[in-house]
Amino acid sequence: MVIITSMPKLLILSYNIDEYAKLIQQADLPNLEIVTDPAECDIILGEPSKIKEALPHLPKLKWAQSIYAGVEPLVQPGQRRDYVLTNARGVFGALMSEYVFGYLLLHEKKMLERIRTQQEKKWDRAETGWLRGKTVGLLGVGSIGAHLAGTAKHFGMKVWGYTQASEASTQVDRYFHPDGLESDSLLSFAKGLDYLVIVLPRTQDTNQIVDANVLNALPSHALIVNVGRGNAIDEPALVEALTQNKIAGAVLDVTDQEPLPVEHPFWATTNLLLTFHTSAISYPEDITKLFVENYQLYVEGKSLKAQVDFEKGY
Amino acid sequence: MVIITSMPKLLILSYNIDEYAKLIQQADLPNLEIVTDPAECDIILGEPSKIKEALPHLPKLKWAQSIYAGVEPLVQPGQRRDYVLTNARGVFGALMSEYVFGYLLLHEKKMLERIRTQQEKKWDRAETGWLRGKTVGLLGVGSIGAHLAGTAKHFGMKVWGYTQASEASTQVDRYFHPDGLESDSLLSFAKGLDYLVIVLPRTQDTNQIVDANVLNALPSHALIVNVGRGNAIDEPALVEALTQNKIAGAVLDVTDQEPLPVEHPFWATTNLLLTFHTSAISYPEDITKLFVENYQLYVEGKSLKAQVDFEKGY
Repeated sequence: MVIITSMPKLLILSYNIDEYAKLIQQADLPNLEIVTDPAECDIILGEPSKIKEALPHLPKLKWAQSIYAGVEPLVQPGQRRDYVLTNARGVFGALMSEYVFGYLLLHEKKMLERIRTQQEKKWDRAETGWLRGKTVGLLGVGSIGAHLAGTAKHFGMKVWGYTQASEASTQVDRYFHPDGLESDSLLSFAKGLDYLVIVLPRTQDTNQIVDANVLNALPSHALIVNVGRGNAIDEPALVEALTQNKIAGAVLDVTDQEPLPVEHPFWATTNLLLTFHTSAISYPEDITKLFVENYQLYVEGKSLKAQVDFEKGY
Repeated sequence: MVIITSMPKLLILSYNIDEYAKLIQQADLPNLEIVTDPAECDIILGEPSKIKEALPHLPKLKWAQSIYAGVEPLVQPGQRRDYVLTNARGVFGALMSEYVFGYLLLHEKKMLERIRTQQEKKWDRAETGWLRGKTVGLLGVGSIGAHLAGTAKHFGMKVWGYTQASEASTQVDRYFHPDGLESDSLLSFAKGLDYLVIVLPRTQDTNQIVDANVLNALPSHALIVNVGRGNAIDEPALVEALTQNKIAGAVLDVTDQEPLPVEHPFWATTNLLLTFHTSAISYPEDITKLFVENYQLYVEGKSLKAQVDFEKGY
């Protein structure tokens, strides 16, 4: 690492350029100059797709800060990799927790059934379920998974985590890993769950990881929530599992193809809810906070937070 | 307080008598004998309505443990008060949190609107709202309110509390009290809220505390959740406020009359959801835990937990 001595120059390429410029100026970062000429900048901040377009015109680029967690456009083979890429992965945990536990509670409290009962003017005191004591499985335990684990613990749940590498969260009660013992496999993981929450990035390894075998392994009362990427689910297998009541439901914030084509069966599949990739929003205030922190590390020549491994793709 | 030297005798009067008997026997409490003759018992455990019926036949009664939080049948004027009455108020916080935050998230995430969008096959990325940063007001801050405050803090919310007496929860950011300054009044409290959660017992003081003035003071985007008792709300005023969009919605687990008569306007009031007094269930496992704890205090002659003040009514 090299201590930065010249005046760092930042290019902002975002649909929210004005707001980012205002927030970053308000942060009054030492020596930072906001520029508009790509040829000048050594730092860029923006949407991954916009950064990708600009890459050939950034001769001095040292660091790119993505305002999203997913950076697919920037990690494809053959892309330029001579700079440090950081994503926004530390930012979305709290927002994702609201989404995930909101839908877990919609399901557990039978809210939609209650609405129908009300329409029928029936005072129906049938018991609903509870999160307390249930087991949620996190497929992927990064920073979002760790936050979800904390919320699950707040609600008195058991937390299992399936992860390739890290055991970063101490709030996960039991970890499962690929290439481990049979008892540590993805199917053993699935068998023990009341909820399966998918928090995986789109990579080669995550393609259709939730396939017919995993869907068959899940208990029939299980609910799936996908807030990662749509590639993780074998979509025809999911339609079949839901249609045949092999699982209780699915809440999908993401689908393999987005926007979802109108002819896709998901629109009308029983017990499947779509939320159109809105589970967490990239707010300039949140991203600027991360950028300010990383800028401080950058000028001190230290390792940045939320660095992307180009090989892994996240 | 007197150290109990004779062998305490417990009468169980509950719809779940078998389960309570089993759980209490399993707890293996020193010297406790379970009896079936009312004339013999000095301790009784059960539903308040069943305890009330038995009261004239319990000459030796020293302590009654209600398995509910609400003990209205036992605190009416003219009733016998020569015994210690404890309720189940410490037990329901976690269950109530699931219910309250489930419905807050149903509202904030616009889940019902999303379902309609899906039916129209529209990929609608309109942003939904967040709990983070919003203000929830707890009308009543007892043990349930304190638990709700903790969950609100977990979700990054601001918590206001309106309470007659105690400031028991340190997670409440700002307290309001009756008979305080104008700026501390119920209307000032209501004006600042995104959510009003009612957690009040049924007493003379809580009758229609949420009246037209309070409903007018709430912001038009505010949602009301009532998990206390139905008497707290002026019901015709609530119907008017919802019909005229003076507030955004109401989720009522309780109503003044239960079951709600079929001719009541609540069944079909816009943006009003009913859940038929199911927000928290009295589970024998939870109640037995409290009973065991209180029994230990009882035999040691100490003050019991969750004692009811007959004058206050809770």
